[in-house]
Amino acid sequence: MKIKYDPEQSVKIIPLGGLEQIGMNITAFETESSIIVVDCGLAFPNDEMLGIDLVIPDVSYLVQKADKLKGFVITHGHEDHIGALPYVLKEVNAPVYATKLTMGIIENKFKEHGLMKTVRRKVVSYGQSINLGDFRIEFVRTNHSIADATALAITTPAGVIFHTGDFKVDYTPVFGEAIDLQRIAEIGKKGVLALMCDSTNVMKPGYTMSERTVGRTFNSIFDDHRDSRIIVATFASNIDRVRQIIHYAYKYGRKVIIEGRSMTNIIATASDLGYLDIPEGTLIEIEQMKNYTDDQIVLITTGSQGEAMAALPRMAASLHKKVSIKPGDTVIFSSTPIPGNEKSVSKVLNELTQLGANVIVEDTHVSGHASQEEIKLIYALTKPKYAIPVHGEYRHLKTHADLARSMGVPKENTFILQSGNVLELSYEKAAVVDHVTARGILVDGLGVGDVGNIVLRDRQLLSENGLIIIVLTLEKGSNMILAGPDIVSRGFVYVRESENLMEEAREVVEAAIDKCLSKNITDWGKLKVEIRDSLGDFIRKRTKRNPMILPIIMEC
Amino acid sequence: MKIKYDPEQSVKIIPLGGLEQIGMNITAFETESSIIVVDCGLAFPNDEMLGIDLVIPDVSYLVQKADKLKGFVITHGHEDHIGALPYVLKEVNAPVYATKLTMGIIENKFKEHGLMKTVRRKVVSYGQSINLGDFRIEFVRTNHSIADATALAITTPAGVIFHTGDFKVDYTPVFGEAIDLQRIAEIGKKGVLALMCDSTNVMKPGYTMSERTVGRTFNSIFDDHRDSRIIVATFASNIDRVRQIIHYAYKYGRKVIIEGRSMTNIIATASDLGYLDIPEGTLIEIEQMKNYTDDQIVLITTGSQGEAMAALPRMAASLHKKVSIKPGDTVIFSSTPIPGNEKSVSKVLNELTQLGANVIVEDTHVSGHASQEEIKLIYALTKPKYAIPVHGEYRHLKTHADLARSMGVPKENTFILQSGNVLELSYEKAAVVDHVTARGILVDGLGVGDVGNIVLRDRQLLSENGLIIIVLTLEKGSNMILAGPDIVSRGFVYVRESENLMEEAREVVEAAIDKCLSKNITDWGKLKVEIRDSLGDFIRKRTKRNPMILPIIMEC
Repeated sequence: MKIKYDPEQSVKIIPLGGLEQIGMNITAFETESSIIVVDCGLAFPNDEMLGIDLVIPDVSYLVQKADKLKGFVITHGHEDHIGALPYVLKEVNAPVYATKLTMGIIENKFKEHGLMKTVRRKVVSYGQSINLGDFRIEFVRTNHSIADATALAITTPAGVIFHTGDFKVDYTPVFGEAIDLQRIAEIGKKGVLALMCDSTNVMKPGYTMSERTVGRTFNSIFDDHRDSRIIVATFASNIDRVRQIIHYAYKYGRKVIIEGRSMTNIIATASDLGYLDIPEGTLIEIEQMKNYTDDQIVLITTGSQGEAMAALPRMAASLHKKVSIKPGDTVIFSSTPIPGNEKSVSKVLNELTQLGANVIVEDTHVSGHASQEEIKLIYALTKPKYAIPVHGEYRHLKTHADLARSMGVPKENTFILQSGNVLELSYEKAAVVDHVTARGILVDGLGVGDVGNIVLRDRQLLSENGLIIIVLTLEKGSNMILAGPDIVSRGFVYVRESENLMEEAREVVEAAIDKCLSKNITDWGKLKVEIRDSLGDFIRKRTKRNPMILPIIMEC
Repeated sequence: MKIKYDPEQSVKIIPLGGLEQIGMNITAFETESSIIVVDCGLAFPNDEMLGIDLVIPDVSYLVQKADKLKGFVITHGHEDHIGALPYVLKEVNAPVYATKLTMGIIENKFKEHGLMKTVRRKVVSYGQSINLGDFRIEFVRTNHSIADATALAITTPAGVIFHTGDFKVDYTPVFGEAIDLQRIAEIGKKGVLALMCDSTNVMKPGYTMSERTVGRTFNSIFDDHRDSRIIVATFASNIDRVRQIIHYAYKYGRKVIIEGRSMTNIIATASDLGYLDIPEGTLIEIEQMKNYTDDQIVLITTGSQGEAMAALPRMAASLHKKVSIKPGDTVIFSSTPIPGNEKSVSKVLNELTQLGANVIVEDTHVSGHASQEEIKLIYALTKPKYAIPVHGEYRHLKTHADLARSMGVPKENTFILQSGNVLELSYEKAAVVDHVTARGILVDGLGVGDVGNIVLRDRQLLSENGLIIIVLTLEKGSNMILAGPDIVSRGFVYVRESENLMEEAREVVEAAIDKCLSKNITDWGKLKVEIRDSLGDFIRKRTKRNPMILPIIMEC
């Protein structure tokens, strides 16, 4: 199929998830007859989303237009780009396109969710193009903190939109080749209508260092700690990091153990697909560790963000069944804390130090995202008419928009989109023309979307002050009190140490009931309000707290 | 009184609060006949302490030995050094010694708590010594992020203990003089038994910059933004920072507004005591702001840590009654996020950017704590026999202990103390000889210590999954069900969308009750366990969640 070009034609760009502090990457591209979706990520809950496991995008817009939907095109295998696929595909099925490793990681999820038979999949190579309705999408090689990341050159009837995905420029990657700058330049030379470029590190001046520099640090740490057991914590999906750790383990005559379920899975996938060449006999099972001395072991583990249930934090808390940290162990954090995780990471660092481990955190990580000079390079190569910064909090997108202007994109041609904004682009003009439903759906256990704001507000209130329940049984008709009022509290105070308070509370409730019944108030709603108000006032006055107060009236 | 020196004598050092991740600074020094306490701070709750307002130290050890207690000696006016005084002094009264500004801040608290008449207070100047029982304590000038910070040279019968307090070396302070290195050297020359030195920045190589360097940044920001309204957020207690902001406001012809209760209070105290010289007519009330143009205004405000109830975060969320952020405003964050606050700060930055403000966070803050080279300097000047690192998390104390060894203190002479450890020091030997009660007491509203682990565990459980209440009324004797079972839930699911689930839950409960009653089980404890177990299983299977299940049985 040949795309017909027309300066009068337009295309719509609709972010359906991210671009907010809770960022799920999922963006629809729409014409009269076709829709494609780039990425389909999930987000992890923020502090206010008590008890929530994860957040997925509301794709009701896609469900409405399911007949136009041609497919999901995925840039790389990180959770914030692929994690919602199993949930979304149950709502609206369409083929999935991705590079080999990315597809391998997606298929792990599909197997878990029983989707292998129902969802069509196609592996795409760098340089290859796919035609999906009105769109032709070329996969362009980039670098990132996971192998097989791709940028997308999306040819639309209105022109080419270049989407970088998450990327950095690594001239000396440890696996595969550097980002295909020549091809990006070629695409740019032919004319790029809009650039959608990664904003994560747009606050950072200069260049992001090559992954290879971390290898040099590992080399010297391994050299300096030849007698010590070495434990390295990193992101499960950072296969290039794992590759380097294994390389130096092998160089220094050590065996490697992979610990942590997510890491074991992803390493197995990468290894199966030929992305990780592990020298014969290097990898051993954790049970074999006892057959080796400390200087013969490297443990690669999850938990670098201090996640309580992951392997390293359990070791640090002496809760891990198979590994006990001991004095002399060298523990390397090959990561930086994601904002919000600083305290958990700090806790793990302290616990490890207290157990006598030597903890190393410096120069053992580089980012997978482009800094300012790399972002400028992409602008210089693509020279887009429009700039649409993606992947970052609002102030990152704003800073990116300023950078785009410094690279020659006029202010009126830069767009900071909110979730649900419908940006209509043509060669002649561009504007947000509509707004569609785009919100996060909360997933708690097996429940998808059954927890909302009221439930969260209750959890918040309960978490801060606990609750007081008042139960009483009234006789039908006569409204005589047959039983109670009984007062039960949870999460409020130590009842045993506050007997007086609870006894007085009972008296307050009794007075409130007497007042109502003596006035012949038989509307239980009113009775409940009276109990809640008078007890609430009493508790607030006496304790300066606001527990949830829950009157329950039974009738018999 | 003259202290008699004796190499055979010993002194005990007992940290009663801090040295943990939740750090309250309070340390007892004890001899046969006397106890003094250095600092008396509070801590802010960690993420697990749901609903808790603050944490104070358990001073039951001091209460037991109240007759020996000679006084509280305070190093400076920060909450983690003075905040628990009002609570502790109600338990065990003793005189308080501090420099002038520190005492002013303490007295603000005493006024609130009605302690002005009951607690004796003495203002001490730099260079002055006080005699308290077996101890003589000299106040030695230092620099910190609050004026009037002091180190303490504590002469004990066993020798001199030098306690730095929180400090940095600022050769060019913006107010007062530089740390008294000559006097510290002199004390060192005469012989220091033990050094207790600030560990906060011991991970940072080099020197901490002078407060004055921040002034230069302000100068250029004020110069670059002459037309814009300027809003600066900083710590309420950083009087030197406020001094510099006022200085440059005045220089650029602007009026200054102080917004935020804690800041207004501390600035008033500092100003009254002569620590803040504000040019006549510079300070205006917030109500007068409307009489000036944007280029004539500087607002200094609290909330630099993203605290939801503080002034700047309320402005950012458009909830502030008197200040609306508008496009073109310049907002300076003159602070760095304290670990754990990164996400809240980030939220405020995004909101401000979204409102069109120009947000500046770089080069606008320096730390108040000494870096490695400054700490080494103190070791070089004091040459202590023993090193007892203070003020930091475990890994800071550990790194500090290593640094002390590099400065010539033998490994066996460095001590990392845990709360409650009793370290006995003499010229001949030093060892932890005992352990006393030292824990945090939780303060929630007016309640001190009435919230403990069980209450917190309930709050945690409630916050994650909410609760389900089952109420039923049984007839006395016959055990017939007179009313119920009724099911009420909060923080669990949207009941309206989960009608089937709740109906099935009711059936499960009824079956459990029938089973018990048919077996003539009349022990309500057993009946409750049966209800809880069967409903719990059902809910877990259907939703993968574990709400708190609370059966309540009434009898009539």
